[in-house]
Order: sequence, then C-alpha cells, then structure tokens
Amino acid sequence: MSGTQPNVGDVIGELAKVIEGRRNADPSTSYVAKLFSRGTAKIAQKVGEEAVEVALASVGGGSKDEIVSESADLLFHLMVLWADRGITAEDVTNELARREGVSGITEKLSRQS
Amino acid sequence: MSGTQPNVGDVIGELAKVIEGRRNADPSTSYVAKLFSRGTAKIAQKVGEEAVEVALASVGGGSKDEIVSESADLLFHLMVLWADRGITAEDVTNELARREGVSGITEKLSRQS
Amino acid sequence: MSGTQPNVGDVIGELAKVIEGRRNADPSTSYVAKLFSRGTAKIAQKVGEEAVEVALASVGGGSKDEIVSESADLLFHLMVLWADRGITAEDVTNELARREGVSGITEKLSRQS
Amino acid sequence: MSGTQPNVGDVIGELAKVIEGRRNADPSTSYVAKLFSRGTAKIAQKVGEEAVEVALASVGGGSKDEIVSESADLLFHLMVLWADRGITAEDVTNELARREGVSGITEKLSRQS
Repeated sequence: MSGTQPNVGDVIGELAKVIEGRRNADPSTSYVAKLFSRGTAKIAQKVGEEAVEVALASVGGGSKDEIVSESADLLFHLMVLWADRGITAEDVTNELARREGVSGITEKLSRQS
Repeated sequence: MSGTQPNVGDVIGELAKVIEGRRNADPSTSYVAKLFSRGTAKIAQKVGEEAVEVALASVGGGSKDEIVSESADLLFHLMVLWADRGITAEDVTNELARREGVSGITEKLSRQS
Repeated sequence: MSGTQPNVGDVIGELAKVIEGRRNADPSTSYVAKLFSRGTAKIAQKVGEEAVEVALASVGGGSKDEIVSESADLLFHLMVLWADRGITAEDVTNELARREGVSGITEKLSRQS
Repeated sequence: MSGTQPNVGDVIGELAKVIEGRRNADPSTSYVAKLFSRGTAKIAQKVGEEAVEVALASVGGGSKDEIVSESADLLFHLMVLWADRGITAEDVTNELARREGVSGITEKLSRQS
C-alpha cells in the first residue's frame, strides 16, 4: 500500500501547485479562488477557525478520523494563507529545520555540500 | 543553495522523529516532553493560540519573516498534537490527497502500481 | 438619549432570559435552540471563531462598527455557552469583582452590608 | 447575599473605569498598562487565546469554576481591546439590544421615554 501512497512532501508540493493554479480561477466555481478574492483577513479567519476545530476535536473526544479531517482543513487553509502572502512550505520547513529540534538534518546536509 | 536545503517532506519526517524521541524525556529540560506531560488540552490550546498568532501576523501587516516564524510555531505544535493523538503527517496528507484538489497525484500513483 | 437606552446589566440580564426561554424551542426556527441542540462542542467552536473574528477586525483596520458587531456576536455566543454549562453572567462578573482590579466595589459593598 | 454582590452592569462599569485609569500607568507594575503599551495586535491575540481556553475548558470537562475563571479572563481582555479601540460596553450591548432577541427591552424603554 505504501508504495502507491504519495509521500508528505509530494502532497504538499502538489497541493501548493493546485492552490497557485486556481488563484485566478472563477470564484463562483473554485473555492480557492473564492478565498483569494475575499482577501487576507478572511483567509486568516479560516485558519483561526479551523485551528479551533482541530483543538476542540482533539480535546472533546473526537475520533482519529475526525481530527485528521479537521487537521487537513487547517493545513489546506494555512497553505492558502501562505500563498496569499507569498510564502512557500519550504520557507516554513526551512525555519523549522533551523531551530534546535531538527538541526541534525541541516548539519548533515551542510556537511554534504 | 537548494541542494543543501532539506525538502519539506524530509523536515516533517525528521521533526516527527524528534518529537517522538522526546516524548518521554525530562519535562524540565525538553519542551516537547513538557507539552506531552501537560496533556492533550494544553497542547490543543497551544495549537489554537499559535493559529491566532499566524492569523493576526498575516492581517496586521506582519513581515514575511514574522508570518513564517509564527507558521513554524503552529506547525510544530500541530505535529505534537498529532503525535499525542496517534496521528502521523501521512494520515493528514493522505486525507488531503483523497480530496478533490490533489486527486491527480493519487490517480497517477495508483496507475503506477 | 441615554435615558432611553437600556444599560449594560439590563441588556445582559434580558439576553440571558431570552437565551433560556429559547433553549427548548424548535431548532428549525430558533438559532439559540439550534445551538443548544448541536451541543457544547459546537457552541464552544462558535465562541472560538467569533473571538478570532473580533481579533482580526481589531487588528486589520476594521471600523468601530465592525468591531462592535463582531464583539456582539462573541458575547452572544459566550452567553449561550455559559447557559449550556449552567453558568450565569453574575458568576463571571463576581469572579471579575473578586480579582484585584475591581476589588474596590466589593469592598465598598461589603461595608454597606 | 445578593445585597452585597455587585450586579453585572456595576462590575462591568467599574472594570471599564479601572482599565481606563490604568491606561497610562507604569507598564512594569500595571498589567493593563502593559497590555496597552504592547498594542492592539497583542491585546487582540490575548482575546483569541483566552477564547480558545474558554472553548477547551467547556468541551474538555473543565469544572464550572474553571470555565468561569477562563470566561473572566476572556471578558477582561475583551474589555481592554474595546478600550484600546475606543469602544464601550454600552456600544456592544446597544448592538445586542438592537438585534431581534432583545428587542423587547428597547421597545419597552422607548415607550417610557
């Protein structure tokens, strides 16, 4: 099964392209285009709201599937917000890698260069 | 430059291992262990709070660096919440891939299998 | 003008009665009844979401009217959550009065008794 | 007992005065002054965060005392945000009274005038 499943980086990369490709689509038929057309504040509001839903599902005894579904909603809207502000997933993971917790991989990779 | 930078999937995979590796560390020296020791509600609270910070930084004229930094905080705490609830990043990206927007990659990959 | 405007305590007291009176109304015609019927988690979610909207309107250059309107939404849903959990506005303002900032009025009132 | 307890409107009115009186106090000794000095975005962030705490306490089996305490935190920071933006509690309760649910009291009061 795992051979046919896209990995985490592929899905995020593909999703970023999908979001970018729909930026200027028709807001009446594309949810992504509708989000962009409503502006940063509305996209940011969705990020805040979806995070509240993730938090409540996690605390209120939501099933694993429910938390996964809410997390997917959050990550999706977060990526739209990133696109709206000219930020890529790489920008964020590079920041994570720079921090203490995952310094190992940057160290390893800088030794390779 | 990009040759020495870890890609998105690598960072997330590595960060997941770091989080797991610190789950049972000393809460007085490991922030991750401290989060786990405080329980799901406190971790979920951090996710909600960090999302509010991302939203406000995005709307309030925060610099790109600031939004990236807040987003890294959010993603980190979200991953701790996932670990707390037995969820992996793959669970979430598989859910994203199943949805309409990124169905292309699952279709392509299932044809390969 | 102020003579014809209900004061803060009157409105909150009246609103609490309205909320209580609709608790068991038909969820298809009463928004309050619908909220109660959906349960604590959904009401709590609305509180979180409305607070995010208040925060974003305040930061993102929203007009005073907009912030007032979002604040009214937040206070309303907060009061439904209180009712759902058997809490009154008095419980909350008594707690506020007990704290340092408004201790003056409790001191004054206890001297009167 | 109720004779010695301040009513909801009194506490909110008194708290508004306390907040206003500390607006220009020393931020190193006054929490309210510190909030004002940090600016709208930080105050708004606190409102969002406290709302998330109220929501999680309500859903996660928090005691009534805990929800009351978190609600007091939320209301307090909301009132600081209102003060920061030139909004009074009356502005918000007037908006609530204008809406359908509590129209009864405005009707009654306008008949009195």
